[in-house]
Amino acid sequence: LISIAHEAGDLNDFRAILGNDIAIKAYREGEQPFPDGTIIARLAWSYGPSEENNKVFGREQSFVAGAPINIQFIVKDSRKYAATGGWGYAQFNDGKPADEVVHKTCFACHQSAKARDFVFTRYAP
Amino acid sequence: LISIAHEAGDLNDFRAILGNDIAIKAYREGEQPFPDGTIIARLAWSYGPSEENNKVFGREQSFVAGAPINIQFIVKDSRKYAATGGWGYAQFNDGKPADEVVHKTCFACHQSAKARDFVFTRYAP
Repeated sequence: LISIAHEAGDLNDFRAILGNDIAIKAYREGEQPFPDGTIIARLAWSYGPSEENNKVFGREQSFVAGAPINIQFIVKDSRKYAATGGWGYAQFNDGKPADEVVHKTCFACHQSAKARDFVFTRYAP
Repeated sequence: LISIAHEAGDLNDFRAILGNDIAIKAYREGEQPFPDGTIIARLAWSYGPSEENNKVFGREQSFVAGAPINIQFIVKDSRKYAATGGWGYAQFNDGKPADEVVHKTCFACHQSAKARDFVFTRYAP
């Protein structure tokens, strides 16, 4: 587990960011750019109140992960993916890979995090 | 990873709920009560905006996990912890176990989730 986040605005999701051992080690040691072989996964669910918890507590208390939205991965291979900052991008909707048009949007957005090796997520200690 | 949540109100935290293999299996198969040996961990961090992400996007976009608050565990042993619904409760602040007074408050609150074997968190698929 690298961290968790709530994206507001159009996304309005709840997400967990997981990494393989190479990713976790790089995060903990502050190694940037991330080494080849790093894999970071982003799982997203809908974001909403827990009606059953709120009923128990009698107030707006809990916001929880609802229906799954999609899963994204970034994989570091500085040679293979040199054109996109060394990262390959993938998105799966309901287990099926998203199409090329979707994947073309990934790097455009991640470029804004260039100073952090194109990765938005920081490690939650 | 079982799920993630944002607790509002006095808590105002961001939390990840993790489980051992027994916990994950029970969640996926809808097995309740949870079998002996189930361990569920709750990691909590402060909840707040990501100033650096928001600057990039020019709007209130990201809410992220900040400083760690504490870690809690529940362990199922229906004989050893019979007096508290079969669950043993533990909290660690900065690596050190919390005192008895804190632990006395755990079951009082979890009793309100008795219909779900005293566990608030549902599995995020």
